[in-house]
Amino acid sequence: MTTCKVVFMPHNREAVVREGENLIRAAMEAGVHINASCGGEGVCGKCRVIIESGAVEGGITEKLSREDIEKGYRLACRSVIRGDATVRVPVESEVDASVLKLQFTARKKAKIVQPDFGALKEQGLFLPPVEKRYLDLPEPTGPDNMADTTRLVSFLKLHHDEHRLVVGLPMIRKLPGTLRTDHFRVTVTLARPVQSGRKSKIINIEPGDTSNRNFAIALDIGTTTIYGEVIDLKSGKVLAEGADFNGQISYGEDVITRIVFTETPGGLEKLNAVVIETINRIIDKIIRRAKVGREEISSITIAGNTTMTQLFLKVEPYYIRRSPYVPAATLYPPIDASGLGLNLGEHVEALVYPQISSYVGGDIVAGVMGSGIYRAEKLTLFMDIGTNAEIVVGNKEWLACAACSAGPAFEGGGVKFGMRAARGAIEDFSMHPRTFEPMNITIGSVRPKGICGSGLIIMVATMFEMGIVDSQGKYNRNLGTPRIRENEGVWEYVVAWQADTQIDRDIVLTEIDIENLMRAKAAIYSGCQTLLNEVGLDIGMVERIILAGGFGSYIDLEKAMTIGLLPEIDPEKVTFVGNSSLMGARMSALTNRIRLDVASVIQRMTNFELSETPSYMDHYVAALFLPHTDMDKFPRLKARLGKRHSL
Amino acid sequence: MTTCKVVFMPHNREAVVREGENLIRAAMEAGVHINASCGGEGVCGKCRVIIESGAVEGGITEKLSREDIEKGYRLACRSVIRGDATVRVPVESEVDASVLKLQFTARKKAKIVQPDFGALKEQGLFLPPVEKRYLDLPEPTGPDNMADTTRLVSFLKLHHDEHRLVVGLPMIRKLPGTLRTDHFRVTVTLARPVQSGRKSKIINIEPGDTSNRNFAIALDIGTTTIYGEVIDLKSGKVLAEGADFNGQISYGEDVITRIVFTETPGGLEKLNAVVIETINRIIDKIIRRAKVGREEISSITIAGNTTMTQLFLKVEPYYIRRSPYVPAATLYPPIDASGLGLNLGEHVEALVYPQISSYVGGDIVAGVMGSGIYRAEKLTLFMDIGTNAEIVVGNKEWLACAACSAGPAFEGGGVKFGMRAARGAIEDFSMHPRTFEPMNITIGSVRPKGICGSGLIIMVATMFEMGIVDSQGKYNRNLGTPRIRENEGVWEYVVAWQADTQIDRDIVLTEIDIENLMRAKAAIYSGCQTLLNEVGLDIGMVERIILAGGFGSYIDLEKAMTIGLLPEIDPEKVTFVGNSSLMGARMSALTNRIRLDVASVIQRMTNFELSETPSYMDHYVAALFLPHTDMDKFPRLKARLGKRHSL
Repeated sequence: MTTCKVVFMPHNREAVVREGENLIRAAMEAGVHINASCGGEGVCGKCRVIIESGAVEGGITEKLSREDIEKGYRLACRSVIRGDATVRVPVESEVDASVLKLQFTARKKAKIVQPDFGALKEQGLFLPPVEKRYLDLPEPTGPDNMADTTRLVSFLKLHHDEHRLVVGLPMIRKLPGTLRTDHFRVTVTLARPVQSGRKSKIINIEPGDTSNRNFAIALDIGTTTIYGEVIDLKSGKVLAEGADFNGQISYGEDVITRIVFTETPGGLEKLNAVVIETINRIIDKIIRRAKVGREEISSITIAGNTTMTQLFLKVEPYYIRRSPYVPAATLYPPIDASGLGLNLGEHVEALVYPQISSYVGGDIVAGVMGSGIYRAEKLTLFMDIGTNAEIVVGNKEWLACAACSAGPAFEGGGVKFGMRAARGAIEDFSMHPRTFEPMNITIGSVRPKGICGSGLIIMVATMFEMGIVDSQGKYNRNLGTPRIRENEGVWEYVVAWQADTQIDRDIVLTEIDIENLMRAKAAIYSGCQTLLNEVGLDIGMVERIILAGGFGSYIDLEKAMTIGLLPEIDPEKVTFVGNSSLMGARMSALTNRIRLDVASVIQRMTNFELSETPSYMDHYVAALFLPHTDMDKFPRLKARLGKRHSL
Repeated sequence: MTTCKVVFMPHNREAVVREGENLIRAAMEAGVHINASCGGEGVCGKCRVIIESGAVEGGITEKLSREDIEKGYRLACRSVIRGDATVRVPVESEVDASVLKLQFTARKKAKIVQPDFGALKEQGLFLPPVEKRYLDLPEPTGPDNMADTTRLVSFLKLHHDEHRLVVGLPMIRKLPGTLRTDHFRVTVTLARPVQSGRKSKIINIEPGDTSNRNFAIALDIGTTTIYGEVIDLKSGKVLAEGADFNGQISYGEDVITRIVFTETPGGLEKLNAVVIETINRIIDKIIRRAKVGREEISSITIAGNTTMTQLFLKVEPYYIRRSPYVPAATLYPPIDASGLGLNLGEHVEALVYPQISSYVGGDIVAGVMGSGIYRAEKLTLFMDIGTNAEIVVGNKEWLACAACSAGPAFEGGGVKFGMRAARGAIEDFSMHPRTFEPMNITIGSVRPKGICGSGLIIMVATMFEMGIVDSQGKYNRNLGTPRIRENEGVWEYVVAWQADTQIDRDIVLTEIDIENLMRAKAAIYSGCQTLLNEVGLDIGMVERIILAGGFGSYIDLEKAMTIGLLPEIDPEKVTFVGNSSLMGARMSALTNRIRLDVASVIQRMTNFELSETPSYMDHYVAALFLPHTDMDKFPRLKARLGKRHSL
């Protein structure tokens, strides 16, 4: 990836961005505000900049006159960076230096860390869960006419040091014909046991030598989205990936409404059928993309939250949503994939990540396993933030976890113009410190339709730090901007005027929206604090934070600390792992080490039910401020606000 | 059972028979000939006897005059014994004493030995393969909200010393609802592992205490007939039994024609479907008879020959009938019964007896296991005689086996009036030493339709010992009886004139029939001899013979030795075990000891392919005489014949 350095004047701030990025995102990166209402679609024409030098393409639209263009004006949001460049922001050239200092801090780049195949091998953790062996067996004769399975098993014992093998019926059915297709030259697939001391299973046999073609599927069953990957078990590479909305969405947005649906006659069967359907569609798509035959898939590993797992396995989830919140099972045995309805070979066993409790599920366990916390020396805090947030703390010695319900604010629920992180969602934002004009950046660089979770956090944090919103989440009513107004008794800020949107109204952020966000962030912060307290720690002792989940990966760390969603820590200690559930599924497709370890991990993980922990409510109430009632918990923010007020 | 002593005069021979038996069968038992052509239906009127004293009912038909009746005449075949009695055979009263001596010897009662539950317990061999446990689990609370499986497994660990347990998906699916039906009071079913060192499996859960209701099904899949039993696992009792013809009969009489059928498109699927259909019909019948709920069946154990086993499991049998006769597998893992199409609870695992080779199958292994040869001190010869005969020799130290194809003579094939052992088949026979008139006894005491295997052996043995048939199986042409005649170039004996039969012809026994019987018996005798030679033994060293199979149980031992089907041994050494395949299936339903032992038994069983053993053909040719070319192998018979000739 080629990177380019872009310097913004007169701020003299720079951003290092990948070649091909547009200028408005580079400015956001550098912490430079440019008015931009239309999300990057080039419609509002406000983001005019002058290219002083360097390689910048495009940016010319009918919003610019011939004269402008000759002077070097371009629309930042339509300008593509092709090399190092220097860019002047004209509107800023008129404001004084103090305003420049009021700019928000530069974006911290998300440090996404994902373990790789090479590292596994280096650490001696690579134990292939399914292996192929090419065998040239002696053909039977009169005096040597042992049964086909006996011939196969004896040969593997004698020549491959495989002493503990089982052969299942589907395999026996394939054996006689396959052995004789190519004169007893065959490739067998061995599945290693998921518990130590148990036997390996010969799961498949193919004529000839197919030992170079061995693939697995890793699957993350999310409440909203299901992700799948095809993995080459020889190289450890992901050959193809694909995702689709979980077909269950039509029957309820979240796990609770899904469970309610299963309580109607045939409900469980219906939800099971639609999720299997979605998964089969993803499997079809990714094996086609990977150019892999269906029969070449040797295993599938699956992670999902407790409800998704039970629905996938057609296990009644009724008691998950009822106190005392009991899941059906934690560990599941390997399960015949075709028996579950998955469109895969008869030989494939589905390995399903175990659960900890009703609200700390296989997706979190997969994250813990995949990110290696359970083997880590460092005391680590792992958080997966969404409608429900799951928090794990510990290291290789001990582990504790808790789940809290943040509500749907981070996914756009309970927010007037909230929406999922989809095309048209405002995902990044800054505000002009004098004019209060916004800089909106949307997913897909199209006119905005709404605000997604990460955009919401940035907006509230930015406005709080600028003093537009106070610590109780209320707007300053005296700024004299038409963007802050009262509407039917509720104060709001106009993020985009109707003309700059894709919809038929102004997009606003109301005080009710901010209140909902504060509730959500308070739930997470207090969950985190309660869990740490229960195990006798405080945040200062945490050596590393891992943020997981699609949402977690998009979070602007500083902004999340500004609103008090995350405790204030050194951003250097934070890593993002993206979809850690999928990562864990991929990792356990690659090495049996994880599958061998997971049973002991879930046994030593202590689950705290926050509803049963009296201090949780106290922590929650104290966190219902921006960032918190106790400002001393946020010393860096306190210092910044102090500096700003002194300006 | 009340027994009665019946004395036949003037022979002064007695028979002890059960009350309710008829006189003609008692006479046969005593070794007393009474002319009787119609099989016991009372039609021919030849079996007139005089009741001298004692309790005999019936026997009065229109074949007797009022005068006869007053004199005490009765038809033996219609007379029912109600107590001790003395009976005079009038026709015999006229012949001299030497004729009386020419009578055949009295029948040896079949000593049927079947192991029982009490003996298992006494021998310390009783390890229940499936057990029920009633549990009163603590109900979950806020602080104690572990997953349902965890609660169950921990409780079993703590209170029932069960430390190695697995829980499968069907069980997990049942768990949440069942636990809460009766306040966490449940009965679980534990299936013990079939290999030592592996885990027990929780296969079922029911609300409340059902620990007194625990049942198994044992099944013998014969090529012709399928037998099933419902067994009470608490008492070890057989509650119900049932049988039906294997539905595959319509697609071929024997295993070879069945295999040929599977080579047509869809053939394997068809034969699999019809055998599953037959089995389901039997299951329905026997659970109804036993008054047992389908869900109360905890296990099913199955034995069958190699072809029947592969067809039942839908495993291609193509190579079984082709040199070098390789079966697909010997050991099969436990298999989900409902997955096989059996109409049983989802929790039931089918345990299928392993095979030794293509022609020594699970039925024989079941016989070896059920009859306990593999644990015996005594050197034992085990034979299962049918179209194919399987022979096992050995004891607890070693085991060897072989199979030979006898052809269908014992089941009525290749014999002009041969038939299966069904109603109307002549099953017992004697001959008047002067008049050559027959005494026919049929199954069901109806007029004869044909001759079954055991009847055939008795006929040929009787006629050989009387000198009617010579050692080459040819009739003495000079006896002056119309019953021995030439018909279209073939000599034959008229067993029943048309009028005394149910059919439209005389029932005869031809020299070709005798030749076919000689081939069949030679195959078995020489198989036996070859196997013994290969392991360095001769018949004199065998301490015990076990005869298995429906046919084996009906064999008249002395007669079988007379024709040279069995080597001549002390009849006291012989036991019959009836359907040993079913017995083995029943035994392994009752004790896990057998299932734990079977893998090592099949490993130490040496299989001899007779077609690969050069001496087999020499032995065979030498055995193609009555009883054998080497009369010294049959010293008792030789002595009897010597005595007879001296008369």
